[in-house]
Amino acid sequence: MDNVRVIEIKESVFKENEINADSLRQELKEKNVFLINVMASPGAGKTTTLVSIINKLKSKYKIGVMEADIDSLVDANTIVEKTGVDAIQIHTGGMCHLDATMTKEGLNGFKNLDYDIVFLENVGNLVCPAEFDTGSCMNMNILSVPEGDDKPLKYPLMFKVCDLVLINKIDVMPYFNFDIEKVKENINFRNPLAKIMPISALNGEGVDEAVEEIESRLNKWRGK
Amino acid sequence: MDNVRVIEIKESVFKENEINADSLRQELKEKNVFLINVMASPGAGKTTTLVSIINKLKSKYKIGVMEADIDSLVDANTIVEKTGVDAIQIHTGGMCHLDATMTKEGLNGFKNLDYDIVFLENVGNLVCPAEFDTGSCMNMNILSVPEGDDKPLKYPLMFKVCDLVLINKIDVMPYFNFDIEKVKENINFRNPLAKIMPISALNGEGVDEAVEEIESRLNKWRGK
Repeated sequence: MDNVRVIEIKESVFKENEINADSLRQELKEKNVFLINVMASPGAGKTTTLVSIINKLKSKYKIGVMEADIDSLVDANTIVEKTGVDAIQIHTGGMCHLDATMTKEGLNGFKNLDYDIVFLENVGNLVCPAEFDTGSCMNMNILSVPEGDDKPLKYPLMFKVCDLVLINKIDVMPYFNFDIEKVKENINFRNPLAKIMPISALNGEGVDEAVEEIESRLNKWRGK
Repeated sequence: MDNVRVIEIKESVFKENEINADSLRQELKEKNVFLINVMASPGAGKTTTLVSIINKLKSKYKIGVMEADIDSLVDANTIVEKTGVDAIQIHTGGMCHLDATMTKEGLNGFKNLDYDIVFLENVGNLVCPAEFDTGSCMNMNILSVPEGDDKPLKYPLMFKVCDLVLINKIDVMPYFNFDIEKVKENINFRNPLAKIMPISALNGEGVDEAVEEIESRLNKWRGK
């Protein structure tokens, strides 16, 4: 395979995607729907974190969730069962990420797009989802303690594109060689503007603060 | 973006890669180099596992390591420092996987390709690396306890293409809701032939058995 050719293909795909992402963002602004793109490694706790955040937001906001997965309905079922909000499962057909067109198709799957907030749980992957703008209004990453504090050095783009990074599973910190100050330093080395918040989606520690941060970004986006 | 067109591009890339992978495999056979492709999520413990396995194999076999990473030299340095074997760092330039051509380029980076075993540590990712045959003689996956026992259901292709799955970080099993029998069942649902072995790369539990399994596959490949 000629690598150069592949890169050219990727570039044209990226360019087209950027145009679609900007157009979707414009549409969401008109409809007043705040779309949050949630990215993480497999097993970082995306679904559990979403459940804990949504349960604190749902009395105040109308919320929808899109779960992207290669195959299986596990996550959408969990969201519906544990939060009661609307959830859609998107099957990517083997694709390792969502682009703006796939995100728009997912949004079209809702009966009415009259949500205040839609969470998009992207495919578990620290590489490809970072390369494709989904058209979201905010990018959130969930990095879990067992993955190690060196991940921002190894997956630079992911941490560059994130507005908010939740450090999840801090309840198991005593059992891992994980330095919370080091991870903050590594994330801010990639992205000085990223907000970093430690949480445990399991026992609820830090979740209130994360919810406040999301609300404050939503209000800012709404021009309040 | 027209999704159908992207899929067509992917298919032609896949086809070309398969031809290159078969040709690399043939070359490795002639040179008697057993190439092991190691895949896992970010933070599953690939490098630590490789260190513990290599330290048990290196007195008997000449070993080389290729570390694929988007950016950083962390892993190759760790391998050299902790095992003393030759290691090469491959920067993928943002690519989320290695294909057979990139693997061959990496192998050309060794002064002499006179190794009994070369380990290729692929990019940390449960999606894309599974789609691209690297030309290796054996595929190994490392799934760690904190990621959860449902991962084989969510990342089907990864577990379909693996000959050996090491369940790593069993030392922290008491702190996670992880069912070892369930994960075995989920892996074998995707791939009845996959060999599954629990290990702790940190405290050495199960590593001898994993080493034996690798040696037995090497001998089989050599026709012994």
